[in-house]
Amino acid sequence: MTVYSMENPLFVAYAIAAAIMVLKIMGQGWVTVYRMTKSEAGLLNPEDLLPGPANRNPHPAQLEPSDYVERSRRIHRNDLENIPAFLAIGLLFVAVEPPFWLGSALMTIFVAARLVHTVVYTTGQRHEVRATPYTIGSVIVIFMAAYVLVAALFFR
Amino acid sequence: MTVYSMENPLFVAYAIAAAIMVLKIMGQGWVTVYRMTKSEAGLLNPEDLLPGPANRNPHPAQLEPSDYVERSRRIHRNDLENIPAFLAIGLLFVAVEPPFWLGSALMTIFVAARLVHTVVYTTGQRHEVRATPYTIGSVIVIFMAAYVLVAALFFR
Amino acid sequence: MTVYSMENPLFVAYAIAAAIMVLKIMGQGWVTVYRMTKSEAGLLNPEDLLPGPANRNPHPAQLEPSDYVERSRRIHRNDLENIPAFLAIGLLFVAVEPPFWLGSALMTIFVAARLVHTVVYTTGQRHEVRATPYTIGSVIVIFMAAYVLVAALFFR
Repeated sequence: MTVYSMENPLFVAYAIAAAIMVLKIMGQGWVTVYRMTKSEAGLLNPEDLLPGPANRNPHPAQLEPSDYVERSRRIHRNDLENIPAFLAIGLLFVAVEPPFWLGSALMTIFVAARLVHTVVYTTGQRHEVRATPYTIGSVIVIFMAAYVLVAALFFR
Repeated sequence: MTVYSMENPLFVAYAIAAAIMVLKIMGQGWVTVYRMTKSEAGLLNPEDLLPGPANRNPHPAQLEPSDYVERSRRIHRNDLENIPAFLAIGLLFVAVEPPFWLGSALMTIFVAARLVHTVVYTTGQRHEVRATPYTIGSVIVIFMAAYVLVAALFFR
Repeated sequence: MTVYSMENPLFVAYAIAAAIMVLKIMGQGWVTVYRMTKSEAGLLNPEDLLPGPANRNPHPAQLEPSDYVERSRRIHRNDLENIPAFLAIGLLFVAVEPPFWLGSALMTIFVAARLVHTVVYTTGQRHEVRATPYTIGSVIVIFMAAYVLVAALFFR
């Protein structure tokens, strides 16, 4: 039997975690769009100053950095530094067949940590609070990568 | 039979879409290199001001932002916000076995939308024009993620 | 037999390469954290100026760009422009079943090139030196993507 089948509970757990994380990444893009539109600020391109439905009252200051918009971009960037690595290593973690409880627990905690990270970052909590979910997510990915590496090198 | 086999037409469709999108990402890196070299601008590192084959007439203004070069970096960044998520969810979409016509149509449209997005962004079309292929690509990834999530939660 | 099994030597080679590259990405995040903490500079968020265990003597200049910290972010960004594409195409490369020597050689050289790239970038070597491992890694990913594309289009 193949490990990559919807009949493997850990693969299903991975599919659920990955789908939620993909929705997280894509949703952050729309938060940036929403914030640019609402604040009429934080635009990046000279052509975005053309008047039109998306920008009715353009002015040059719209190209200056806006913390309201940049915050969403920083969250997005932080996602991109963590989630694609999780998506890749999670798939391989399934292949090396850890105990189901371990695999599903790590994936669940990772997803929860990244969602909490976004809430904490969006609301501007202090650094130490933001660092906690970041650290949890990062340590899980590192653990999964080390587990895959050891399994691939020594236990096949 | 496993879904991840070159005998599964939807997996082959995914492989084609993914390969084109990977070439898109890598190509954008070389566009940035080309633009830096051609305009002798948009460099990022102090050591890039050392005279040599890649920079025959260095001067400090080369470290200032250049819209010609930054535009390629913004396109690249937009790719990184969308394409890795597609690559991950496309693979899982294959696993939940949607109708072939649906899967291959979504993947084809996604690839086309991202290539159009690059052309539109490179040529500096107005915001509303650029937003269209971005939206199409983003909605397809979101749909695929929702489809995987529902299939994994309810239909296995 | 499925290609995605720990009994396929090339899949094992991919798992090893992918795990190392995931550790590389995650490690760079911690290098940025280390550099921010050590130099007390390069912070990104207004709330990071709140006094606390992570920042005992806050001052507004901490929000200005610091090359020491930004260099780590640039390395990270370069990783994100190259490694996720490798992770996606490497998996598909396994599926089209190239000769083992070719697949494992390309993956090994890619991993080595990206690790050398980080060393060269971290130590601020001149542009031409940094461009070499970047080019090697990029060309390998492009070759793998072209190989997958041709195999998927013509040889199935």
